[in-house]
Amino acid sequence: MQKIEHLGIAVDNLEEANTLFSKLLGTKQYKVEEVDSEKVATSFFKIGDTKIELLEATAETSAIHKFIQKRGKGIHHIAFGVEDIYSEMKRLVQEGFELLNEVPKEGADNKLVCFLHPKTTGGVLVEICQDKK
Amino acid sequence: MQKIEHLGIAVDNLEEANTLFSKLLGTKQYKVEEVDSEKVATSFFKIGDTKIELLEATAETSAIHKFIQKRGKGIHHIAFGVEDIYSEMKRLVQEGFELLNEVPKEGADNKLVCFLHPKTTGGVLVEICQDKK
Repeated sequence: MQKIEHLGIAVDNLEEANTLFSKLLGTKQYKVEEVDSEKVATSFFKIGDTKIELLEATAETSAIHKFIQKRGKGIHHIAFGVEDIYSEMKRLVQEGFELLNEVPKEGADNKLVCFLHPKTTGGVLVEICQDKK
Repeated sequence: MQKIEHLGIAVDNLEEANTLFSKLLGTKQYKVEEVDSEKVATSFFKIGDTKIELLEATAETSAIHKFIQKRGKGIHHIAFGVEDIYSEMKRLVQEGFELLNEVPKEGADNKLVCFLHPKTTGGVLVEICQDKK
């Protein structure tokens, strides 16, 4: 893992959350993007060397909708940037972690992503991500 | 806010969590520290420009004990590094955020810290911290 690429935060209203987090961070979102495959609308804030991604569900089938129903709004996942997602997925499986997707999938922000099962990571939803080449 | 200084993760057994997160991150904790005033034992991992702090409660009165009882293990807070904690606290109050401590308190890792109430920050427990001079 090279760095924390971003931190994902589940919100119930992206527009209101953009205003709130702009005040909190003292900087505006630099990008808004819908990820249709994940049924989420996202926005990104740059903070130092990393990013904060706000996620609003765009359908009731979205993982974000389910998360908010179960746990309420708040921090959803940590995403670690990796150089080679395939070798990192292999390493993590060898270390005993369980992948939630066996093949990298397309995420927001031009990334290939893979999630790890929180039951194997101390209750933390971990994403690893690599820039698409 | 200059950067994400660290990410706090609530664990129920620091030794086991150190092993788990060493495997996950591919690097060992570089420091273990008890913060008696907060009733926590902590360990720190360096990852890129930021850190991960694991927190185990050392008493039932600890906020970490209560957090785990209510929500289970997992991500507990985001800490943002600031240059001047006093002026940042003032700015945040003016923006409508509620402070959990009106005066900075001593945190782990030689820091002055202040927490914001999650009900004013979209369900996210936010810490701001400044190096002690």
